[in-house]
Amino acid sequence: MGRYKIIFTPNPIEVEVEEGVSLLEAAAKAGVYLNSLCGGEGVCGKCRVQVIKGEVKVDKNSIPFFTKEEIEKGYALACQTRIKEDLQIFIPPEARIEEEQILKEPMEGKQKDWRESHPLRYSEPDWVSLHKRPSDPASLFEPLASKLYLELPEPTTDDNIPDTGRIVRELRKKLKYSSYEISLSCLKDLFIKLRRSDWKISVTLSGQNNVGKILQIEEGNTADRNYGVAVDVGTTTVVAQLVDLKTGKVMGVEGNHNLQARYGEDVLSRIAYVCGKGSLYRLQKAVTENINILIETLARTKGIKLEDITCIVAAGNTTMSHILIGLMPCSIRDDPYVPTVDLYPQILAKEIGIGINSQGIFQVLPNISSYIGGDTVAGILACNMADRPETSCLIDIGTNGEIVIGNNEWLLSCSASAGPAFEGGDTKWGMRATRGAIQKIKINDGKVFYETIGGVKSRGICGSGLIDLIYELAKNRIIDIDAKFHTSLHDRRLIQGENGMEYVVAFPEETEKGEALTIAQTDIDNIMRSKAAIFAAIKSLIDYVGLSFNQLEKIYVAGGFGNYLDIEKAVGIGLLPDIPRERIEFVGNSSLMGARMVLLSFHVFEKAINISQSITNIELSKFALFADEYMAALYLPHIDRERLFPSVRY
Amino acid sequence: MGRYKIIFTPNPIEVEVEEGVSLLEAAAKAGVYLNSLCGGEGVCGKCRVQVIKGEVKVDKNSIPFFTKEEIEKGYALACQTRIKEDLQIFIPPEARIEEEQILKEPMEGKQKDWRESHPLRYSEPDWVSLHKRPSDPASLFEPLASKLYLELPEPTTDDNIPDTGRIVRELRKKLKYSSYEISLSCLKDLFIKLRRSDWKISVTLSGQNNVGKILQIEEGNTADRNYGVAVDVGTTTVVAQLVDLKTGKVMGVEGNHNLQARYGEDVLSRIAYVCGKGSLYRLQKAVTENINILIETLARTKGIKLEDITCIVAAGNTTMSHILIGLMPCSIRDDPYVPTVDLYPQILAKEIGIGINSQGIFQVLPNISSYIGGDTVAGILACNMADRPETSCLIDIGTNGEIVIGNNEWLLSCSASAGPAFEGGDTKWGMRATRGAIQKIKINDGKVFYETIGGVKSRGICGSGLIDLIYELAKNRIIDIDAKFHTSLHDRRLIQGENGMEYVVAFPEETEKGEALTIAQTDIDNIMRSKAAIFAAIKSLIDYVGLSFNQLEKIYVAGGFGNYLDIEKAVGIGLLPDIPRERIEFVGNSSLMGARMVLLSFHVFEKAINISQSITNIELSKFALFADEYMAALYLPHIDRERLFPSVRY
Repeated sequence: MGRYKIIFTPNPIEVEVEEGVSLLEAAAKAGVYLNSLCGGEGVCGKCRVQVIKGEVKVDKNSIPFFTKEEIEKGYALACQTRIKEDLQIFIPPEARIEEEQILKEPMEGKQKDWRESHPLRYSEPDWVSLHKRPSDPASLFEPLASKLYLELPEPTTDDNIPDTGRIVRELRKKLKYSSYEISLSCLKDLFIKLRRSDWKISVTLSGQNNVGKILQIEEGNTADRNYGVAVDVGTTTVVAQLVDLKTGKVMGVEGNHNLQARYGEDVLSRIAYVCGKGSLYRLQKAVTENINILIETLARTKGIKLEDITCIVAAGNTTMSHILIGLMPCSIRDDPYVPTVDLYPQILAKEIGIGINSQGIFQVLPNISSYIGGDTVAGILACNMADRPETSCLIDIGTNGEIVIGNNEWLLSCSASAGPAFEGGDTKWGMRATRGAIQKIKINDGKVFYETIGGVKSRGICGSGLIDLIYELAKNRIIDIDAKFHTSLHDRRLIQGENGMEYVVAFPEETEKGEALTIAQTDIDNIMRSKAAIFAAIKSLIDYVGLSFNQLEKIYVAGGFGNYLDIEKAVGIGLLPDIPRERIEFVGNSSLMGARMVLLSFHVFEKAINISQSITNIELSKFALFADEYMAALYLPHIDRERLFPSVRY
Repeated sequence: MGRYKIIFTPNPIEVEVEEGVSLLEAAAKAGVYLNSLCGGEGVCGKCRVQVIKGEVKVDKNSIPFFTKEEIEKGYALACQTRIKEDLQIFIPPEARIEEEQILKEPMEGKQKDWRESHPLRYSEPDWVSLHKRPSDPASLFEPLASKLYLELPEPTTDDNIPDTGRIVRELRKKLKYSSYEISLSCLKDLFIKLRRSDWKISVTLSGQNNVGKILQIEEGNTADRNYGVAVDVGTTTVVAQLVDLKTGKVMGVEGNHNLQARYGEDVLSRIAYVCGKGSLYRLQKAVTENINILIETLARTKGIKLEDITCIVAAGNTTMSHILIGLMPCSIRDDPYVPTVDLYPQILAKEIGIGINSQGIFQVLPNISSYIGGDTVAGILACNMADRPETSCLIDIGTNGEIVIGNNEWLLSCSASAGPAFEGGDTKWGMRATRGAIQKIKINDGKVFYETIGGVKSRGICGSGLIDLIYELAKNRIIDIDAKFHTSLHDRRLIQGENGMEYVVAFPEETEKGEALTIAQTDIDNIMRSKAAIFAAIKSLIDYVGLSFNQLEKIYVAGGFGNYLDIEKAVGIGLLPDIPRERIEFVGNSSLMGARMVLLSFHVFEKAINISQSITNIELSKFALFADEYMAALYLPHIDRERLFPSVRY
């Protein structure tokens, strides 16, 4: 297979990729993030690009998205275009990721207000590449809830088996469950439905443990109308993806802020609320409201009926998952950190107040431990780690860093208390990756270049901005290897703040508040503690299995960095191990993707169960050497730079 | 093994049985019916007998039922006494089956009254012998809902798997399901239950398709308190048996009259009601009320709590089963006679308004066709026909005669429209086997000897009485081979009635009404049609498989004959085939026994499903020869007496 050179313009970036890769993947590899609401399914039409040098064939399904003139001018959908030669691509403004598109409404007023009222658009451009791996879920396509149209032979004296037997006989020709179950509600009016419909019916069923459960029987052919929803239930945001369960195509994505936030910002404060004087029911109600809002919005905008949604698969951390189905999360918080459940029962969505088809099922992905949840299991699925012989690593950076290492023979996980620095906490100007956040920084010759989300005046710095900032400060020798300011340095941006030295990232006139946006030594210390905890955890796990970083085929990085993470700089500050950069991949919201994979295949669901039951979870507190590793990682990039970060140069 | 001679007194009857058989079985073989409410489980203490010659050891569990003096006098429980030598037995009055004990209250006033208020006691002495066969359910003892006491190790840092995982890990040591499911309701407060109980819990679970479903988790050790109910849902009567699911012992039996009777006497009239202007819900409500009353009575008298009843297994004909769970039975009645369902879903009892444990399950036994129901499947289980290589036959005589022939390799069934003659219909003085019914008749020298149920004045004749009567009329040459009265005969009992000849069974002074109790030619004709239909069906099925009657190892006869059926006379009138009498066994309520076997073993339940799915049901209407067989059977005993009834002499 050949390798081809792709140049993206207007801000030229060049990338070399293998034949057959899609333009959307190539763009992601180049760090160019294209709009792609549907996640590379070719249905949203957002990733339109213009081929200005070279030739591509427009996929016939993409034609409706373009005028004839546009096609002649070389327009195509990046996600549907396979690379077969060197290309030069122009990215029109509408296809560039503009964070205004993620946040549909400006976030003004008090936090409480927008949390409750403003929906948040979500895109996940990065995992597109994951989708095309050998174990592409499409090859395992058997949705958790599928609908089949059956034309049954009318009973005769020679063939007068019971109505249910007649249905099952027909199902056996198409499916391979060893047995079938039918709910009482389906039986109730079956007698009349079959006869009124002239024995032509559509059967919705779910599969589990080799048993096909008949959920719904409708008259006539409604097999075209069967939808599912994958939900990523994050502590901060909830994102839902509407999927056509007949075709597997993503129809739409919506996100909003977790309404539980009013009861506490993070997992621990919500547990404290529930297990103190608060009410579990209120928290449950909040998040099910989130989901109901998203589903209603998706259904309305896509013109489908709620009753045609038959299945929801949700992934979240262990606490979110427990609260979602109404379980007290108290024991999660207390030593020895025991959740109530790992394998969640398949319940009816209505049991937890979610308004879809009355027989529609709701499945929460299994968790691994109190601090490694279904979102991580989803991530493992999304990265396909558990199916390949090569060993790879998944790093999900949040308040807790979850790390998984393994292959198709073994999987090891651990959770590191990273603190909220990369999520906007623990630093004076830290904020989440939302409108106004500085997400990209470059310092050159005493000048600071930065980019805010939405291109508006800066309001703070998000995780990816902080990584860039630390890197740039180190590179420009404004901070030393121990991440302390060079107090002797003469730089007009280095000022004396209330609690010691601060570095001015944006001057008052550049910020929304009209105050200088700075980073103080204490902020840097907090970030350093976070990055040290994560790196030490990765290092401990690698040492535990007796591997070296170079034996990792891939490192997948997930986390709430929005759509941007500069991998070079993340390695540069010693957050990620120093392995060839092309082996590090930013996978964005792998939780949502894993949930969708499960939604589309009960084989994948079985894999999820298998992962949650077979993975070995390591308590870092038991590693005698973890503390040493942590201390060694409190440097830039590391105290053992020679051996561990040989390629980092600044 | 030796054979021993047992003489039962005070009315001496002698029987020879094999070593090890119980006295209760021996009595049944001798046609002596002992009181045995619990069905031979040794718990009711009703089958007390006195050994007056020979010696037996009183089983130590039986001791509480006797005084020291009684034990010295040779008292023992017949069901718990194994025969090891020749014995002479005295049956005290209290142990004799007295029908007053079956009907606890005299049936006075209008039918409506007693149906609704007077419970009916039920006993099933005859299937005791079945219970001791090689595939004794005890050897398969794994109740449909079982309860286990678990002492879980408290979580530690080294062992901090989720609560559910901890439970399942412990269950796996004791059970062998491939996977486990837990309901949302069980999870809800699991967190607190486990910790409050110091990790000592009792888990109730049901098994299906190799999946263990956790129904209930209780704090502490409640494993002793787990009860089930087997229910025979007959068109006329509903009988429930309370079973201790820990030991498998029967604790009590209660029966009442099906409250649906107010909406129609038989199956067809109830279907007509439901599918006409009537309400399915009312019929369903009626029978669930029956069951609730029985269960409440059993729970109250046995001092157990309704919430400790975790499982109900019901057997009934297809229409009764459909109505019970709320399904329209209309298509059962109409050509091509298709029921809605054969394999009933496992539902929660509360779903159909039955008040036991809120997570308690309700299982209806599968049916075979519209006219061969779960009661027949239960009968096949009870007779153990489907497990033995020898071919046997089950004949269930009711308004429909259900006939099953087969062995462990094949099973064949058919249903014959027998008419209600043997159930008290279609004849002027016919009645069900209740108080006042003549159940036994002997004619000698122009004198009629008879026995009424309860020993009271006669009110009518039940099925077994009619069989005896026809036989005796034939034997005494009062009717001829074509079942017509010898009009030339001079007998003061042979009188001219309104519609032809009648035979006086009881003179006016002997009857409750003060009228002569007679049988008319038209009555006899109706009975002949019934017996001909049943025999022709048996014969057709036997011919269909190319066997002769003598190749049947056993014929089991079930049906509403109360506790009495004279097999010699049933053969004598040509109702049952002429094979050696010891190969014909009256099995009473095999439906209830089969339901209990399923209650006690999910292996047996799987067998029931297997039977319902693998049996071949034959429509008699398709047999060209059935009509000929029917015509040939309209004689006493048969037109081909020489070949088919060589042993019948009168």
